[in-house]
Amino acid sequence: MSVPASVQWVGGVDGHIELIDQTALPGRLERLACRDVETVIEAIQSLRVRGAPAIGIAGGYGVVVAADEARRQHLTGEAARAHVLARAESLASARPTAVNLRWAVERALRAIETLPEDTPAAVLGEALLTEARAIHDEDRQLCAAIGRHGAAVLPAGGVLTHCNTGALATGGDGTALAVITTAWDQGRRFEVFADETRPLLQGARLTAWELVQRGIPVTVVVDAAAAHLMKSGRVAAVIVGADRITACGDTANKIGTYGLAVLAAAHGVPFFVAAPSSTFDLAIDLGEDIPIEERAAREVTHPLGVQAAPEGAAAFNPAFDVTPARLIKAIITERGVIEPVTRATVTGHM
Amino acid sequence: MSVPASVQWVGGVDGHIELIDQTALPGRLERLACRDVETVIEAIQSLRVRGAPAIGIAGGYGVVVAADEARRQHLTGEAARAHVLARAESLASARPTAVNLRWAVERALRAIETLPEDTPAAVLGEALLTEARAIHDEDRQLCAAIGRHGAAVLPAGGVLTHCNTGALATGGDGTALAVITTAWDQGRRFEVFADETRPLLQGARLTAWELVQRGIPVTVVVDAAAAHLMKSGRVAAVIVGADRITACGDTANKIGTYGLAVLAAAHGVPFFVAAPSSTFDLAIDLGEDIPIEERAAREVTHPLGVQAAPEGAAAFNPAFDVTPARLIKAIITERGVIEPVTRATVTGHM
Repeated sequence: MSVPASVQWVGGVDGHIELIDQTALPGRLERLACRDVETVIEAIQSLRVRGAPAIGIAGGYGVVVAADEARRQHLTGEAARAHVLARAESLASARPTAVNLRWAVERALRAIETLPEDTPAAVLGEALLTEARAIHDEDRQLCAAIGRHGAAVLPAGGVLTHCNTGALATGGDGTALAVITTAWDQGRRFEVFADETRPLLQGARLTAWELVQRGIPVTVVVDAAAAHLMKSGRVAAVIVGADRITACGDTANKIGTYGLAVLAAAHGVPFFVAAPSSTFDLAIDLGEDIPIEERAAREVTHPLGVQAAPEGAAAFNPAFDVTPARLIKAIITERGVIEPVTRATVTGHM
Repeated sequence: MSVPASVQWVGGVDGHIELIDQTALPGRLERLACRDVETVIEAIQSLRVRGAPAIGIAGGYGVVVAADEARRQHLTGEAARAHVLARAESLASARPTAVNLRWAVERALRAIETLPEDTPAAVLGEALLTEARAIHDEDRQLCAAIGRHGAAVLPAGGVLTHCNTGALATGGDGTALAVITTAWDQGRRFEVFADETRPLLQGARLTAWELVQRGIPVTVVVDAAAAHLMKSGRVAAVIVGADRITACGDTANKIGTYGLAVLAAAHGVPFFVAAPSSTFDLAIDLGEDIPIEERAAREVTHPLGVQAAPEGAAAFNPAFDVTPARLIKAIITERGVIEPVTRATVTGHM
């Protein structure tokens, strides 16, 4: 059993992006066609597409959509390129924490850097589409490699994961979740616990959905149950993804990750991060310098759109937190395993 | 500004219990009349009334309702008493973790122990009502004393609390929340953070509602944001209630409490427990021997009744966890402050 692609390009250079609208899961499997950049940006900001690698792939294809907008607006050479660059910048800054988004957008743009100034929009689009497809294809392979490397170091016993880091979050089988599913596909059997991951419940809604699709038994817990679960001895490893990793190995990931890492350390449970090398941002040394996106209070006060907190209550809603390298046993990338996690091993790995 | 009574007795010995239906908050302030024991038990099990002291008060009044059932059924002396004792046992075991429930039921029953076997149901009811009112009145005073003792030791700076331990949870102003509101009423000013407290969101729904009623600014956070909040330096103290405290000071409280205590220790933030002395169960020495209620998976899979997790996903839903005494800086009771928390100081306090 498998999970449908979260992001794909449909058609030729005048085609469009098709996304699984992840906000409708697990109730409905809805697909969203993106034919203009505004729709792509809205999908990223509303988390219809989410997960750092999937956002990157959508960003890459988003630049192709920008070129097609230029073509449809009959913009000529320089104006076409200016349109693409301006829309690309809007795309790249749609969410501030995930480094893959800007990385993918900039990588796609490099494909048109050396083209003549008067290159028609459709030709820009062809070059961009080739590069965006390459980003997507590579991500599939990255996921497979991360799954293999991770399964080799994942200890026997129950595994706890946070948020969603599977097929929905990537162009392939995922990062942290690929480690779990790869180990499972190798015939290993263990309990899989998914933190529900408030406020947006990606663990309950998406990770559990993916595992059910794959026929892997999953047990959902509220985030606050993780400590009790660890104390009970049912968790042999915690494995999570990453939105950005600094030169010293400090890791930004979904809010709650840092707390899990502290709890894992207190219970002697190894804590793993799995992410493609594009997640590393060596321009940033320390985790405290990573910008942390704060999202709308309503995500906290209205779970699944239903009012929980009263009128008059404020909410603080950081989307991410930062886990210091010292709490991470190993970082698994497509290139292998970084262990221990230090500035030397991180920079040496890249 | 104040908060209406969560549990009250209306009328004379043939009267009834009136509860605030806490499952309807913060959207609607609904009152529920309990004229038979089944309704009381359902209200306790469905968390229409919750919070260990409030459950105890409802249990005390519940035994009066049992006597009124006997009167209405025209049961005579021994049969009336047998009915009261049987219903009392059902009440006492309606929830397994909160020790106050059984404590209050048994205390009420002692009021009829020495009455002659042929005492009419109405007379049993009078004696039970007197005792149940005494339990309620004492709880009001306990809350006030806990608030005073706690405010005296609460450090300056932001406070994080979990679940609801206020007027809704007690017969007075609360336990842990009374410490916060008492300090505020003394003119101290500080940030108050309320963990939303999944699965049932008592922090977002009830604690935030109470604080809004009192005009105290409150900021709701998802449970998984606590670690990030502590690292940011905005939390000077964590204060929570308790459902049961053992002879060595190990404390059962709402799921997530233990994790908060581990995180507080890791960040050098003092962790306080506030609870009346009826919460202590000296018959149990170690926390691992406290029975932990597991509640329905649906509370996890369907937040506020809306489906989050897919069909086919399991859920693990322990209602409580146990915080070891070593992680608790002090336990605040109506008698004063237990610090440090050891078997000697706990048993010496009682």
